[in-house]
Amino acid sequence: MQEKLAELKARLLEASDLQAAAAVLSWDQATYMPPGGAASRGRQLALLSRLAHERATDPALGKLLDELRPYEERLPYDSDEASLIRVARREYERATRVPADFVAEFSAHQSASFEVWSRARPANDFAAVQPYLEQTVEYSRRLADFFPGYEHIADPLIDMYDYGMRVSTLRPLFAALRDLLVPLVEAIGRQPAIDDSVLYRHYPEASQLSFGLEVAQRYGYDLARGRQDKSAHPFTTKFAAGDVRITTRVNEHDLSEALFSTLHEAGHALYEQGVRPELEGTPLGGGTSAGVHESQSRLWENLVGRSRAFWTYFYPRLQAVFPEQLGGVSLDDFYRAINKVQPSLIRTNADEVTYNLHIIIRFELELALLEGRLAVKDLPEAWAALYRQYLGIEPPDHRDGVLQDVHWFGGMVGGVFQGYTLGNVMAAAFFEAATRAHPEILEEMAAEGRFDTLLRWLQEHIYQHGSKFTAAELLERVLGGPLTVEPYARYLSRKYGDIYDLRS
Amino acid sequence: MQEKLAELKARLLEASDLQAAAAVLSWDQATYMPPGGAASRGRQLALLSRLAHERATDPALGKLLDELRPYEERLPYDSDEASLIRVARREYERATRVPADFVAEFSAHQSASFEVWSRARPANDFAAVQPYLEQTVEYSRRLADFFPGYEHIADPLIDMYDYGMRVSTLRPLFAALRDLLVPLVEAIGRQPAIDDSVLYRHYPEASQLSFGLEVAQRYGYDLARGRQDKSAHPFTTKFAAGDVRITTRVNEHDLSEALFSTLHEAGHALYEQGVRPELEGTPLGGGTSAGVHESQSRLWENLVGRSRAFWTYFYPRLQAVFPEQLGGVSLDDFYRAINKVQPSLIRTNADEVTYNLHIIIRFELELALLEGRLAVKDLPEAWAALYRQYLGIEPPDHRDGVLQDVHWFGGMVGGVFQGYTLGNVMAAAFFEAATRAHPEILEEMAAEGRFDTLLRWLQEHIYQHGSKFTAAELLERVLGGPLTVEPYARYLSRKYGDIYDLRS
Repeated sequence: MQEKLAELKARLLEASDLQAAAAVLSWDQATYMPPGGAASRGRQLALLSRLAHERATDPALGKLLDELRPYEERLPYDSDEASLIRVARREYERATRVPADFVAEFSAHQSASFEVWSRARPANDFAAVQPYLEQTVEYSRRLADFFPGYEHIADPLIDMYDYGMRVSTLRPLFAALRDLLVPLVEAIGRQPAIDDSVLYRHYPEASQLSFGLEVAQRYGYDLARGRQDKSAHPFTTKFAAGDVRITTRVNEHDLSEALFSTLHEAGHALYEQGVRPELEGTPLGGGTSAGVHESQSRLWENLVGRSRAFWTYFYPRLQAVFPEQLGGVSLDDFYRAINKVQPSLIRTNADEVTYNLHIIIRFELELALLEGRLAVKDLPEAWAALYRQYLGIEPPDHRDGVLQDVHWFGGMVGGVFQGYTLGNVMAAAFFEAATRAHPEILEEMAAEGRFDTLLRWLQEHIYQHGSKFTAAELLERVLGGPLTVEPYARYLSRKYGDIYDLRS
Repeated sequence: MQEKLAELKARLLEASDLQAAAAVLSWDQATYMPPGGAASRGRQLALLSRLAHERATDPALGKLLDELRPYEERLPYDSDEASLIRVARREYERATRVPADFVAEFSAHQSASFEVWSRARPANDFAAVQPYLEQTVEYSRRLADFFPGYEHIADPLIDMYDYGMRVSTLRPLFAALRDLLVPLVEAIGRQPAIDDSVLYRHYPEASQLSFGLEVAQRYGYDLARGRQDKSAHPFTTKFAAGDVRITTRVNEHDLSEALFSTLHEAGHALYEQGVRPELEGTPLGGGTSAGVHESQSRLWENLVGRSRAFWTYFYPRLQAVFPEQLGGVSLDDFYRAINKVQPSLIRTNADEVTYNLHIIIRFELELALLEGRLAVKDLPEAWAALYRQYLGIEPPDHRDGVLQDVHWFGGMVGGVFQGYTLGNVMAAAFFEAATRAHPEILEEMAAEGRFDTLLRWLQEHIYQHGSKFTAAELLERVLGGPLTVEPYARYLSRKYGDIYDLRS
């Protein structure tokens, strides 16, 4: 069996190394590649991805996994080896369920749709994308149908990003969240608006970058095993246990952009840097689900990076970097500025309170599309209705409405958006558990700008395991039960109750 | 036949794309990769290189090339298609001659030898590398023996870098060169030494980089299809027709280092950017041999970049960038400083006149090793004797003597060094031909800092063809005959006769 296990690892390593090579090419494409490299790079990436897919779906791999089943069953569930075989089998089964022809056809459609959307969005032209989106809904349904036996047609799609999550558990969770958020947004709307103009003064790029990266390092992001570069859209990528990189973008007239995107990506990177290096090159070697990953980016961006404790220590340091811009601004005013709540049209610019409503709207709409309750032609109207209902605003056009996100137009309908909100809800639950276990976390942060107790807790309970446990298993282990909205509700009520003086 | 040709191209493209992906990973390794990425990167590169090699040696490729032979024979020799089939066959035959086991074994030995050399060089320890080098000589001989029928045992090794070149043609060429250079170096040695201390003032990095890159762009290096980064050792790499990158390194106390390495790499890059884009992804898609490639780097670095015409235009501009350092230094003094001749121990620091003697010494020694006329244990002594004889100096230790270059210790013995001197000799021949055809080249350079007539000539006669012609074929087409030392002799005598006042 040791020989078969070694062969399994060798096969998985080769697939993983091909994916890592593709990740290096994608990173370069997003950071340094000159324009002339684009056409060939697409072709090179397609080749690497095909070779990785061939390895991931090789029948010899399936045979090996079958042969290893009795061995796996004798091992403890949470051992590295049993987990390796279990997760590898799950991924093999998922990869082989979908015929290669369908993958190629859908992928070609996605490229064409993306192409059309890229031009349609600036032109505010929903009619141009409508037939493509109709086909995307159809492809998404067909994709789900390769996984028969589902409870809801979105479940197989959700499985691809948040394995084990179900519409039947997400719907009540999101409904509870909506019932919490809509009145909270309304209550905040009745209070005086916060003046956050201080954030839009002129902040030179180099100082923004060095301050953000310094905080990321204080968090524990290790530059001997990572680095930061600039790209049009911030992202985190992993080439190896020892090479986890982040990117950011800088707006010299918006202090929030580079700073909070850096703290966000640093959260993703801390997770990846924290996976036990022995798991490298196996399906266990990365974060376990979109939701858990997002919980870490949001925890470090928001629960930590927008907290009063954090800024108690760091604000004087930020003022020292930008004395002209911030010298006369109090900690309290700065703290309120970075936590200003205001319903807005664009998801990616939304504050902590309204953000999840953007997600819930998309989630509800994509379920309706998949179930056939909503036709694509009626989507803009349904979109506007939900924005009115949940956020009290309405998009004046498609550009800043239904066309704003790439997900439906370059990918699939269903499966992707829920992870963002799951991440926010989990972040609060994990942070509450950590600070209950170690109340000194906030004190260390505020007094010394130290995060080691927090990082150690996350490392021990979450990061080290990589993908060994599903999100649900991890939540059960860490929180002692399934995910609920309560910790997040407590967090938002306390924080925004204070900021907007809602207690009275 | 069109179908078979299409299949051939598809197979070659896949091998080429895998090599390009590996090149991206290597570039990243040399420029931005954090230290933690090293171990995994080595493994990922080995995988890509194995996959590329599998494609390059696939028997189906050989069969296809056989089937295409009658088709090729009906096409003109210099057509794209005939050239593609011809060069692909040559590469296939070379790749399949050497058994995979031997490749793996030699490669493992090379890594081990490199490892030992990396520690032995700083420790000045020839005894440590001696057994490894003895084996390397043996491996190199065995490698040559996979290509029976050679005239000289070094010929098959030379073929790998400078296809078609023979010891029987190189020996007389290098002897003629040596007979020219040794007395020239002696004559220069009798003249007063040039004071080049101005080059070692403090030159801030950013200004050095921007001046060098600006000149490279004036040469015609296109940043929409390339870029410059920093690395420990400067190099040029190509990922696609539209993505040819250079690197440099900067010494703030040596103006020459970044500047001339940038002009050198820009020469390599101009060649690669000039290959007709239709040849991308085929064995014709890059420069044709080490010697011809080096001729372009040396042409743009030395024939152009160290010429009086070049600096007539650019020196006032360099003075404007470094007014404190160069404001009081005349063009004549600066021109003499960058062309100072002085026998020295280290090849990579050598000036234009002494450089080839370093190469000729290595070439003679490696032939002696391969022929069995020289034992590895006697190499340091033989090395010292030739340095005394040709350059009038002697290394005080092994570090700056026989241990200085990586080539023998991380690669093979034979095949590599001749390309450097071939490049210098060809550079002079090409430059003479270009300026004979277009005498205005020097005038454009001196008066306007323009290089377009020169670039156009090189483009038309050399660059566009990629690897369609061997070096010998190219020389025949461009110069009307085989390579001789005369143009280079004329160039050196004229230039250094002036600088060192040797005419009298």
